[in-house]
Amino acid sequence: MGNGDRPTTCIIGAGCSGFTMAKRLSDHGLPYDCFEMSDDIGGNWYYGNPNGMSSCYQSLHIDTSKWRLAFEDHPVPREWPDFPHHSQILDYFRSYVDEFGLRDTITFETAVTNCERLDDGRWSVSLSTGETREYDNLVVANGHHWDARIPDYPGTFDGYQVHSHHYRDPFEPYDFRGKHVLVVGAGNSAMDISSELSQRPIAERLVVSMRHGVWVLPKYFDGKPADKNVLPSWMPAKVGRKLARSKIKKTIGKMENYGLPKPDHEPLDAHPSVSGEFLTRVGCGDIVPKGAMERLDGDGVVFADGSREHFDAIVWATGYNVTFPFLQQAELRPDDNRFPLYKRMVKPGWENLFFLGLAQPLPTLVNFAEQQSKLVVEAIEGTYAFPPESEMTEVIDADEREHLGHFYDSPRHRMQVDFATYVKDLMKEIDAGRTRATQPTNA
Amino acid sequence: MGNGDRPTTCIIGAGCSGFTMAKRLSDHGLPYDCFEMSDDIGGNWYYGNPNGMSSCYQSLHIDTSKWRLAFEDHPVPREWPDFPHHSQILDYFRSYVDEFGLRDTITFETAVTNCERLDDGRWSVSLSTGETREYDNLVVANGHHWDARIPDYPGTFDGYQVHSHHYRDPFEPYDFRGKHVLVVGAGNSAMDISSELSQRPIAERLVVSMRHGVWVLPKYFDGKPADKNVLPSWMPAKVGRKLARSKIKKTIGKMENYGLPKPDHEPLDAHPSVSGEFLTRVGCGDIVPKGAMERLDGDGVVFADGSREHFDAIVWATGYNVTFPFLQQAELRPDDNRFPLYKRMVKPGWENLFFLGLAQPLPTLVNFAEQQSKLVVEAIEGTYAFPPESEMTEVIDADEREHLGHFYDSPRHRMQVDFATYVKDLMKEIDAGRTRATQPTNA
Repeated sequence: MGNGDRPTTCIIGAGCSGFTMAKRLSDHGLPYDCFEMSDDIGGNWYYGNPNGMSSCYQSLHIDTSKWRLAFEDHPVPREWPDFPHHSQILDYFRSYVDEFGLRDTITFETAVTNCERLDDGRWSVSLSTGETREYDNLVVANGHHWDARIPDYPGTFDGYQVHSHHYRDPFEPYDFRGKHVLVVGAGNSAMDISSELSQRPIAERLVVSMRHGVWVLPKYFDGKPADKNVLPSWMPAKVGRKLARSKIKKTIGKMENYGLPKPDHEPLDAHPSVSGEFLTRVGCGDIVPKGAMERLDGDGVVFADGSREHFDAIVWATGYNVTFPFLQQAELRPDDNRFPLYKRMVKPGWENLFFLGLAQPLPTLVNFAEQQSKLVVEAIEGTYAFPPESEMTEVIDADEREHLGHFYDSPRHRMQVDFATYVKDLMKEIDAGRTRATQPTNA
Repeated sequence: MGNGDRPTTCIIGAGCSGFTMAKRLSDHGLPYDCFEMSDDIGGNWYYGNPNGMSSCYQSLHIDTSKWRLAFEDHPVPREWPDFPHHSQILDYFRSYVDEFGLRDTITFETAVTNCERLDDGRWSVSLSTGETREYDNLVVANGHHWDARIPDYPGTFDGYQVHSHHYRDPFEPYDFRGKHVLVVGAGNSAMDISSELSQRPIAERLVVSMRHGVWVLPKYFDGKPADKNVLPSWMPAKVGRKLARSKIKKTIGKMENYGLPKPDHEPLDAHPSVSGEFLTRVGCGDIVPKGAMERLDGDGVVFADGSREHFDAIVWATGYNVTFPFLQQAELRPDDNRFPLYKRMVKPGWENLFFLGLAQPLPTLVNFAEQQSKLVVEAIEGTYAFPPESEMTEVIDADEREHLGHFYDSPRHRMQVDFATYVKDLMKEIDAGRTRATQPTNA
């Protein structure tokens, strides 16, 4: 690619963050390459992705309704159910990429192995083909739901172990039927997998171990997809959260009444776990809730309450590490998923390096980078200018207080943002950057 | 058994209706025999019952909460979940029978093959052993969830067919994985079985065919088992239904919003279908709702809307016929599940024949006959007297209007009663019968 006077960009990854960025650059006539390890687009939503980056299990449905995940210029299919299956999401992604002619601009089965910033600030990108290319800008869109995190417990376990990242279905590659199964975790994967395996014709017994109590939200409130019950955008986030909390508490009741641990936080003070099934399965005794684990113990597990139980299998639904295998720079390594960025995208001092979709947005990540790319493209074109480094650092701190202040601290929450709040702010920020771009610099 | 001066009773069946009747007779020192075809008690709740009378599937949980199904003098286990599994119900039944020493009074593996009323009004009971015995009273407690009803459609179907009565789990005796499956019906079995089979790792495609739209109620309302949200007993049934209807509509919303057919009745005007899972599975597209069937068509089905679809298997969750194979009398044969009885128990002119548990009580049948047996035992002892036949007939009509008036007519609804209303009335009726018993007869 490359065209003398236009800045060039390398996009790493062709999931929904990568290909919406590609579309934006393409719309602006900016040259780019997009490298994808797999044989197709879709990333996390490409079930069984040969690049190993998909965490989809066969039964997975997105927990965002179709009303909230559509791309701006590509409507979702009319016949979709409220909460589409992963295969439908992938089909939608494919139709987007094909409709906008992006497929030919993506280099498949090619990994980015290393990225170095040259003295002139440009990026030198090494590929799995052995080739090295240079770009003015680098967009990191490699996803953050693929590097399985398994907490460290003393002892060893002799049975079958799988991280939710590698879990596919109740039968393959491991047949969970008739087994004593422990699912560890309290997030969406833990909810889904424990619900699926706990069914009487599948596991003989299913225990879920949670260190914290969580609020489990249904997919529907008052007969409507929960994320359609949206509060008006003029309402301050604090007031909205208060109203939503009271509604949630009234609707789902006390977690203790289901035999679950009592959450040590209010609803919406953690990334919500969403399941239309989990609470009923607990209430039916299919899922047996337990507190924290203490240690692995051969053919079983010892829990913090001193009890010991035999298990044939453990499913670790314990989340992911955020890592960039192609970035060796010390400043670009997240510290236990802590990775503050300006507008969740840019490290001060690295203004031609953009991390896309590196967030845990509520409700969804699907069309999040599509919004972020609006700033990125203007930064690349030069119609947007970043503020000075010192100001960027101050803004990062303020934003983290705004987005994370009400969440309890855990590796799961360190990139949490409210989608609507974020986008409102992003649009303001683009305006501010345009003004900065037309003014003489202070330097 | 038999003891010169005390009236004798034969009980047919040792399910929860039979054995609670047995306990009542035993408490009153009345002699009885109880015949059970199976090798154990439990009837419908004995999974895989060798007598062929159990409709339990492996995943079945009762949809009545433990708070509402306990026998009066035998508390349910403290550690039970809100909605126990069928195996827990059977354990509870067994502990009841054993605690009260009833087991030895039950004759197992013995069927009642024929019952004739003799000229003196007593009953001659023929057994599968070849033996015939005489009793003063006959209690029919053979259950009404075992004689599978399959509606008659034109055409033939070449694939696998099973009635929900014979359905056990997704794998045995038929492996539903990867199959195109049609579930016919809109009752609780249809809700449960379609939810179970529709999961992506099981059926390739699952269609549910409903002739009528139904209101699908969750197991929990406001975080409490739905049947704990009970209206005060002083509240007239009509007012209570109105309040409950509005609550239900607000909570579950419009069935059409899930893509389901719009019910042609108000909530609670049909025996409710209860499922904590069904609506979410429809909303996720796992379950594809369709209207009525028109005909079977070889390897598929043609629907009333003219569409045709291929299926590998059909599950008929289409309910049961009420039949008494051991009663040949024309007057004792239900007409398409229409079988009016005095207080849902007695046919006028047959006052020593008691049908127990022959009802569709809301919320449960488990401890229903335990209440009915209070009248039966007094009728047998003679402390309760029935009114004249003509009055019985009038009361039957009035009761049917009270209990069934608000239900739309279908074979499923012809024995519907509201448990609380029924019991309140039953206690009054026992009092009235005691008064009658102490007064000189009009005859």
